[in-house]
Amino acid sequence: MINQLIEKIRRTGAPIVAGLDPVLKFVPEHIKQKAYAEYGETMKGAAEAVWLYNKAIVDAIYDLIPAVKPQIAMYEQFGVEGLITFQKTVEYCKQKGLVVIGDIKRGDIGSTSEAYAVGHLGQVQVGSTMCRGFDEDFVTVNPYLGSDGVKPFIKVCQEEKKGLFILVKTSNPSSGEFQDRLVRGVECADRPLYEIVGEQVASWGAACMGDSYSYIGAVVGATYPEQGKILRKIMPKAYILVPGYGAQGGKGADLVHFFNEDGLGAIVNSSRGIIAAWQQEQYAGYGAENFADASRAAVVDMREDIAQALAARG
Amino acid sequence: MINQLIEKIRRTGAPIVAGLDPVLKFVPEHIKQKAYAEYGETMKGAAEAVWLYNKAIVDAIYDLIPAVKPQIAMYEQFGVEGLITFQKTVEYCKQKGLVVIGDIKRGDIGSTSEAYAVGHLGQVQVGSTMCRGFDEDFVTVNPYLGSDGVKPFIKVCQEEKKGLFILVKTSNPSSGEFQDRLVRGVECADRPLYEIVGEQVASWGAACMGDSYSYIGAVVGATYPEQGKILRKIMPKAYILVPGYGAQGGKGADLVHFFNEDGLGAIVNSSRGIIAAWQQEQYAGYGAENFADASRAAVVDMREDIAQALAARG
Repeated sequence: MINQLIEKIRRTGAPIVAGLDPVLKFVPEHIKQKAYAEYGETMKGAAEAVWLYNKAIVDAIYDLIPAVKPQIAMYEQFGVEGLITFQKTVEYCKQKGLVVIGDIKRGDIGSTSEAYAVGHLGQVQVGSTMCRGFDEDFVTVNPYLGSDGVKPFIKVCQEEKKGLFILVKTSNPSSGEFQDRLVRGVECADRPLYEIVGEQVASWGAACMGDSYSYIGAVVGATYPEQGKILRKIMPKAYILVPGYGAQGGKGADLVHFFNEDGLGAIVNSSRGIIAAWQQEQYAGYGAENFADASRAAVVDMREDIAQALAARG
Repeated sequence: MINQLIEKIRRTGAPIVAGLDPVLKFVPEHIKQKAYAEYGETMKGAAEAVWLYNKAIVDAIYDLIPAVKPQIAMYEQFGVEGLITFQKTVEYCKQKGLVVIGDIKRGDIGSTSEAYAVGHLGQVQVGSTMCRGFDEDFVTVNPYLGSDGVKPFIKVCQEEKKGLFILVKTSNPSSGEFQDRLVRGVECADRPLYEIVGEQVASWGAACMGDSYSYIGAVVGATYPEQGKILRKIMPKAYILVPGYGAQGGKGADLVHFFNEDGLGAIVNSSRGIIAAWQQEQYAGYGAENFADASRAAVVDMREDIAQALAARG
């Protein structure tokens, strides 16, 4: 799957993932009214509104980008109905030829991580039948529990030829609270925790190589370009999923250090910046009716911003 | 809710939470056959088997214990159908008067944690209607992203009078890989990361007090009694959820340091030890047909084991 992702990035010229993280305030009124008219102001109504909204955006942008990243929390907030929409969205995006990164940030003790891994990436045995659950192509994983919380995910990725992005340095303002703590070195100088985690990701990934990159990648926020530079060196073969572009403050110029010399090695996520483009001044001209066209314009601009930044680094 | 939990612990004399973490190999054949006959060897069949199994166990033990802790991964592995069973289980346990701790270990950047918090503990606004999702009483939270990943959960707990258990030192063998890293002290000696996280839990919890304990608690594994002793002192007002008893190797005597002098302050989880008791030599006499009675016997024995250990400490 990592080879497929890279091939799609080359073909589209867009190291971009669209974050399908719908909240109801992003969804235009006419879509909500349609859904509520059918299912009422209920969880089912909300889930239907999100589905209609997602589908229109995916239809408008699927040919421009290699991948989408639905954030499962935004579906889970609507309970079971929301998760039905999550599943429909995953299936629909795959039909459209998109790589789907489930942003689930799961991670638990071994036997529990195994259940998450089979539910999201693999197959579960029921009697003599193998069944698939959410069936994303990649998922994000939280490493706080250490190797035995991560290895069940790696095992399923090996079997299914899928992949992971493991949280190393997250994009949020307080990510440093624990991730930046200086850890005492034994034979070397003290280093922040995220470097230790990054080394571990590189080590897990070494046994999981695609053609040129590992299918065990990392999450490093665009909002921390200096740390990105260091982590790029610590994990040369890890694909880096970079959130925090756009709404969270990351700019094209901040991204260059996340990429390798080959112009590969990173894929940049934008959520609000793409899916709620119609609410931004820059794209307001499209109007609520044409929200999906606004999203398409935002993808084109983002592609250009990244391409210019990469070109400028020489 | 923390007051209610403590009141139930006092009344039952059992600082015990039953981990409803069903995997199909724990479910007796006759239950699986019944479910598959109705829904086939499908995700729906598996989810039905788990539901029948859970219900029988809850019916057999609800009067002995204060709380249950369904591990959502074990439901999520069966996709949407599994999550419908998760929701039914939460609802049923609450009807039976049990406090429900959703073992979800979520944690993300602020706006995303907010979605998890409203979906699991709070209410979400759809049009002019407020809707409830999974509606547990407590959830577990992963702190790796720092304060802005945790605070949205705290906010919802304050509004809803619910609570959290934040991962501090998990029970699994590799929990030390990151959690035990020695972090450089500024004005004091180097200390392991879990102590830093424990201090943060105590600080978050100080503003969230019930009558005698905070509703911001911690997870500390029974498998690490020495660390439990230290963390008990660092977080005197935090209720500690203690996994790892039984199947993972924790024994009654390991638990005493997790409790305060008042005999309170900790609640011990057992999952397999209770729900799969019928498969253990000690309770094999019950047979597969009477699996729920075996679970009841295991709860009684566990209560006794903990009571003896607490009595023995004087």
